[in-house]
Amino acid sequence: MLLDVIIDEAVDRALREDLAGGDLTTEACVGEDTRAIARARAKQALVVCGADVFARAFYRVDPGVRVEAKLPEGARASDGDVLFEVEGSARSILMAERTALNFAQRLSGIASHARQLVDALPEGSRTRITDTRKTTPGLRALERYAVRIGGAHNHRDTLGSAVLIKDNHIEAAGGIRAALDRARQRAPHTSKLEIEVESLAALDEALAAGADIVMLDNFKAGDIAAAVSKCRGRALVEVSGGVTLERIAELAAHGVDVISVGALTHTVRAADISLDLERL
Amino acid sequence: MLLDVIIDEAVDRALREDLAGGDLTTEACVGEDTRAIARARAKQALVVCGADVFARAFYRVDPGVRVEAKLPEGARASDGDVLFEVEGSARSILMAERTALNFAQRLSGIASHARQLVDALPEGSRTRITDTRKTTPGLRALERYAVRIGGAHNHRDTLGSAVLIKDNHIEAAGGIRAALDRARQRAPHTSKLEIEVESLAALDEALAAGADIVMLDNFKAGDIAAAVSKCRGRALVEVSGGVTLERIAELAAHGVDVISVGALTHTVRAADISLDLERL
Amino acid sequence: MLLDVIIDEAVDRALREDLAGGDLTTEACVGEDTRAIARARAKQALVVCGADVFARAFYRVDPGVRVEAKLPEGARASDGDVLFEVEGSARSILMAERTALNFAQRLSGIASHARQLVDALPEGSRTRITDTRKTTPGLRALERYAVRIGGAHNHRDTLGSAVLIKDNHIEAAGGIRAALDRARQRAPHTSKLEIEVESLAALDEALAAGADIVMLDNFKAGDIAAAVSKCRGRALVEVSGGVTLERIAELAAHGVDVISVGALTHTVRAADISLDLERL
Amino acid sequence: MLLDVIIDEAVDRALREDLAGGDLTTEACVGEDTRAIARARAKQALVVCGADVFARAFYRVDPGVRVEAKLPEGARASDGDVLFEVEGSARSILMAERTALNFAQRLSGIASHARQLVDALPEGSRTRITDTRKTTPGLRALERYAVRIGGAHNHRDTLGSAVLIKDNHIEAAGGIRAALDRARQRAPHTSKLEIEVESLAALDEALAAGADIVMLDNFKAGDIAAAVSKCRGRALVEVSGGVTLERIAELAAHGVDVISVGALTHTVRAADISLDLERL
Amino acid sequence: MLLDVIIDEAVDRALREDLAGGDLTTEACVGEDTRAIARARAKQALVVCGADVFARAFYRVDPGVRVEAKLPEGARASDGDVLFEVEGSARSILMAERTALNFAQRLSGIASHARQLVDALPEGSRTRITDTRKTTPGLRALERYAVRIGGAHNHRDTLGSAVLIKDNHIEAAGGIRAALDRARQRAPHTSKLEIEVESLAALDEALAAGADIVMLDNFKAGDIAAAVSKCRGRALVEVSGGVTLERIAELAAHGVDVISVGALTHTVRAADISLDLERL
Amino acid sequence: MLLDVIIDEAVDRALREDLAGGDLTTEACVGEDTRAIARARAKQALVVCGADVFARAFYRVDPGVRVEAKLPEGARASDGDVLFEVEGSARSILMAERTALNFAQRLSGIASHARQLVDALPEGSRTRITDTRKTTPGLRALERYAVRIGGAHNHRDTLGSAVLIKDNHIEAAGGIRAALDRARQRAPHTSKLEIEVESLAALDEALAAGADIVMLDNFKAGDIAAAVSKCRGRALVEVSGGVTLERIAELAAHGVDVISVGALTHTVRAADISLDLERL
Repeated sequence: MLLDVIIDEAVDRALREDLAGGDLTTEACVGEDTRAIARARAKQALVVCGADVFARAFYRVDPGVRVEAKLPEGARASDGDVLFEVEGSARSILMAERTALNFAQRLSGIASHARQLVDALPEGSRTRITDTRKTTPGLRALERYAVRIGGAHNHRDTLGSAVLIKDNHIEAAGGIRAALDRARQRAPHTSKLEIEVESLAALDEALAAGADIVMLDNFKAGDIAAAVSKCRGRALVEVSGGVTLERIAELAAHGVDVISVGALTHTVRAADISLDLERL
Repeated sequence: MLLDVIIDEAVDRALREDLAGGDLTTEACVGEDTRAIARARAKQALVVCGADVFARAFYRVDPGVRVEAKLPEGARASDGDVLFEVEGSARSILMAERTALNFAQRLSGIASHARQLVDALPEGSRTRITDTRKTTPGLRALERYAVRIGGAHNHRDTLGSAVLIKDNHIEAAGGIRAALDRARQRAPHTSKLEIEVESLAALDEALAAGADIVMLDNFKAGDIAAAVSKCRGRALVEVSGGVTLERIAELAAHGVDVISVGALTHTVRAADISLDLERL
Repeated sequence: MLLDVIIDEAVDRALREDLAGGDLTTEACVGEDTRAIARARAKQALVVCGADVFARAFYRVDPGVRVEAKLPEGARASDGDVLFEVEGSARSILMAERTALNFAQRLSGIASHARQLVDALPEGSRTRITDTRKTTPGLRALERYAVRIGGAHNHRDTLGSAVLIKDNHIEAAGGIRAALDRARQRAPHTSKLEIEVESLAALDEALAAGADIVMLDNFKAGDIAAAVSKCRGRALVEVSGGVTLERIAELAAHGVDVISVGALTHTVRAADISLDLERL
Repeated sequence: MLLDVIIDEAVDRALREDLAGGDLTTEACVGEDTRAIARARAKQALVVCGADVFARAFYRVDPGVRVEAKLPEGARASDGDVLFEVEGSARSILMAERTALNFAQRLSGIASHARQLVDALPEGSRTRITDTRKTTPGLRALERYAVRIGGAHNHRDTLGSAVLIKDNHIEAAGGIRAALDRARQRAPHTSKLEIEVESLAALDEALAAGADIVMLDNFKAGDIAAAVSKCRGRALVEVSGGVTLERIAELAAHGVDVISVGALTHTVRAADISLDLERL
Repeated sequence: MLLDVIIDEAVDRALREDLAGGDLTTEACVGEDTRAIARARAKQALVVCGADVFARAFYRVDPGVRVEAKLPEGARASDGDVLFEVEGSARSILMAERTALNFAQRLSGIASHARQLVDALPEGSRTRITDTRKTTPGLRALERYAVRIGGAHNHRDTLGSAVLIKDNHIEAAGGIRAALDRARQRAPHTSKLEIEVESLAALDEALAAGADIVMLDNFKAGDIAAAVSKCRGRALVEVSGGVTLERIAELAAHGVDVISVGALTHTVRAADISLDLERL
Repeated sequence: MLLDVIIDEAVDRALREDLAGGDLTTEACVGEDTRAIARARAKQALVVCGADVFARAFYRVDPGVRVEAKLPEGARASDGDVLFEVEGSARSILMAERTALNFAQRLSGIASHARQLVDALPEGSRTRITDTRKTTPGLRALERYAVRIGGAHNHRDTLGSAVLIKDNHIEAAGGIRAALDRARQRAPHTSKLEIEVESLAALDEALAAGADIVMLDNFKAGDIAAAVSKCRGRALVEVSGGVTLERIAELAAHGVDVISVGALTHTVRAADISLDLERL
């Protein structure tokens, strides 16, 4: 669920970015009274995401444009499926087209990627796939939403939401125990304490210091199994860094609780969606 | 060249997105007086881009942090090269780290991609590679800058900058000639008239109606050669849509003037850069 | 066509500027339930412009106010004509009145000025009158719109839209050819190359270097004719600087393509419009 | 005195308006290392205004640019006088030039107009010239500042600053006494009560109801004298509407306290200032 | 009366502050189709204030939520009274609940305090209770509105609205007469001249210099009576600083015109209001 | 630690709120060249908080003003202690004074209240005092900071930071177990699961369903002891609602982990601080 106050800010900014100087082509070439219907079609298999943002781009250009989602949010669409139907002033449709697509293609791209990763989990697995804070600056709320629509989970939202002690923090704090103790004393009681570890020895230290979650950084397959075993009943295990689609089933089989995938948002592949307009 | 007024808006928005609620981990674990030096290192070959944005993220958290670019903007870095050195309060460095990297990784990713495409052009070729308006909403100025840093060119900036008549406009306007005539009458005299064509017949019609640039949409290889030949001395030829790295040399050999590549900005692969902090 | 996202920003800013502290007079003097009808009347001959902005000022104060434009956008109104009728809560009408009029008077003033200049062109002339970038800071989109409503044309929108090499650029670049060559290499292929010249010799140099448009700066009448003759079939001719209403017909007769008039937006004469309220 | 928080908002908005898409011409034509000095010169007699805003436009593009005002704020400059000297990167100077001038020309235009009106007052006159709320939307603070720099006075700032009961309020309130009584009861005790009157009879009613200031709307010369006489010791007299330069001395001679001139801000004539750049 | 442009800015900012990262609890626990009715109830005697702001918080999350005020703005509610009824999607209600209450509780708290102070005035007293500029940063317009709803008056809105010469100004200006003379010469004629005095001698000086309002700073009871007597017919008398509920009747009995109370806005006691939701 | 990007937004908004129309009094009464030193003094015992915000208000009006904190952030000051010393242009100091104080008084008020609550805990107690989300709209980051400076802890920052299932959520979700199960499945793994319970039976149900934290709503003293006993080793116990200073020691003695106090931010008592200016 994306609130209007969040969508509006992103959509208005994007429209102003593209349309502050008007639309030379459309205003010159298309009559004010020309009406049209346009259909946004998937040009590949994808998970549809961003209907409210897509629609909002048209409404903010012209409240008289009607936008209808032909598939529910999160549905799997096939190449050729109509995703959205847009009807109204041809000018308004053409002016908002690119902005609307820029959003829908990115969000559907993320949702499709998330779905692909989740589908790689073994049937009945309790492992979850999550995003990270490696989001596009200014679009975090939208991208995290797309991750959820694709069936994956969110990691913490911001630096103010939960504690995650990474290698640089350990270095600055002077050690694992010092970092965990300070975090327990100062951070909100609502946050679990997560810490990144780089070896089984560090893992032991983290567990002894009361970590709630351990993030395994570049562990070898064998060490992951050992780590999961050590953590059972004591802490959640998260694996992060360089996770490919191929490794997901294996990691899940080891009993890892969380696989966090930065690429979900730092390397977005826009889903291919095109808009064809028909004059009425 | 990116102006402070543009950078500030993007950086402030990104910092607020991540840090509006503070940084639980850093404020708890790291002492106020701890100082550190951190080095941002390339983890792959890449073209460096975004030094001013990277630095600004640290300065806006703490004007006392010193950021030094170790390679000039646009330089080719190898895996392992230090790109930036950051020195100051450990807290400040840790709080801005992710935001700074989110920008630098995306911009370097785009610049690296652009460079790869430009390098695929034959020696001495006059063909140019350009971006499109398929940019990330809210980050157009930054992404277009990265395209230039990578050695490629920008296409028109916004809908208000220049005329580009696409298939949907032709449909809405009622034909190629109608669209071009109206554009010539109404659009600023500073804009060339570009039009998308889907066949050689349409190309002829566009040339007859005085198009300055024709964009070939999904033309077969043979038709591209014919199109270039027809346009010589009369109009520039742009090819767009589904251009892979492999096809670039071939398109250039045909004498195409412009190859526009949506993927440059709609499918960004973040360059791999990591920051290692050392306590002083 | 002015988009809501553009209008809203300007209108909200203006309303906050005047009404952040409420309206002492209206809130004190006028009952909450008092209803009224108000008519905005031209107090001089003018070209109406800004109906959407005028209406928006009332709607943002009170969505229950009804605003009706009695003449279409761009129509010529005579002294005494009713331009807009506003009906609703007397309080709301009085609170938005000044903001609504401040916009409508400026935009109608610009449209009227533009119309006057265009009307000075000889019957059938192909010369166009354009604005410049000498717009009121923060109101460029609205002012360019008013120029179009008055029948004139827009010049390039922003520094990022098209190339215009002025005397200061030539000085900094080290000459006309250097400037044009660099612009051709780096600027988007969608932009024509315009350059300012101060003599016939400079004009020759600009043409030889491939300028698409030449802007004649303070040329004598005789030189303008010579310049137009030299440019025929090679480049468009723009005249700028100190153009009075009287000189327009003469410049058009010389065959000048474009006359750009900074005064259209740097020296706005607000059209005289008053609002008379009648209690219902 | 204009605060940075006010200037920054206006300048940043204006720079983004012009430069969101970069500066095609300057970035292409001018080398990154080229340095220059530029001088802003008056092309007419004028009162200088807006030095801080002018300078800020350059600083926000490039903090390394040095801007020096050669004449103090409010000074009378002659045609040809250097007003400002700007030195630094040629690119930065060229990119900010138009925005800086757009502000300085408008503010100097207003200050010059204000000075002209004030100079039309008889020697030693206690009559003051003021602006109105007919300011350019979004620029009220800057324009009111320019009015003061020109030697004139400000009227109330906003609808929330002071009470001014105009004809439409009287109509909505149901009469002069009702309006004044309600205003006295509800408005802050710090505000005088001003009311517009259209006849000597209405003036009597306003004085009887305790008005502190009466605004004479379109009074004949004879009636103005009578009005001033009635108000002596009881209320200030303000004349508004259609005041030409010629009438000012006459109105002052009648002993009018305040002459408010909407044209000071609704019809701004930009002062002619040009910037000449010299490559270093 | 609070304008939408003012409310929107405050409500959107508050919603983004709380909901930029979504609502983990509600989105997880509550079904998308669950509908509910919720009632906001007073948990103490209070004066209701902020209905439009309260409602707006729900509408901006979901325009489909219906909010009904059960008591008019400014009404006195008893412990247990239903103030607002909210019906719609349970998710939307839960997401906006805290933001809506944060506004309504503060505004009702201020209105209740204002009412309590006003009620302490003797029957028929002409003394007024006012706020000061000691408002919560960013919420001045809303807080001043609540003061009025509670039956008290506003003091000047901003530093730009009216003249109030305080002790620090007198020190900086070099004396009472100097300060008043300069203010009379430069400030808008619509503003009365108020000055703070610390002794009867200073009061005499202020009256002699033409002050319209004198603010008595920490005067003893006896001196207040003397001050009121001196000012009769010449200036209004305002008392400020350390005014407790108990002293109000006494000050009013002395004939003081204005009692300004900083605590009205600098020390807000949120009115106790709770929201109970019932699933439909 | 408060970041500049957070402080700037709040301070700029507050300055614009007060100074958009300038400062009539100061600009009229105080000479441009007058310099002064001003001292902000505590007028009561307080915990000093907000030095960076206080200083920023002056710097944003005039970067030339020097502000020095005489006591460290979080120090206990006595009545009469100088907290800050401000030196520079008298005009600048007077213009920023109220805004600077409005921030410092509120933040110091919150810090002082937090300190008072924390001091009420028995020596060596492990109970923590926390704030809630009942913060002033728009000022959450600043107020949470003041809570920490006072020695208390923060609760979760936003609805997106952690899970807290309140009575209304349980009603909407259809029960305690349903709510907890859904939250565990969907919410980020970094968040503990907190739930509000209204009876010991509900507490048992919450513990059985795996709650990490239980919030006791209006439990009687005896039931609190029982609840703490049941939760030992299984969940943290938070008490919220109507907690007075007197009850804190008792609650801590029961072994409650967290006492959350809405009044810390919903009912702020501004600390009394005054600024005395001396002309230099």
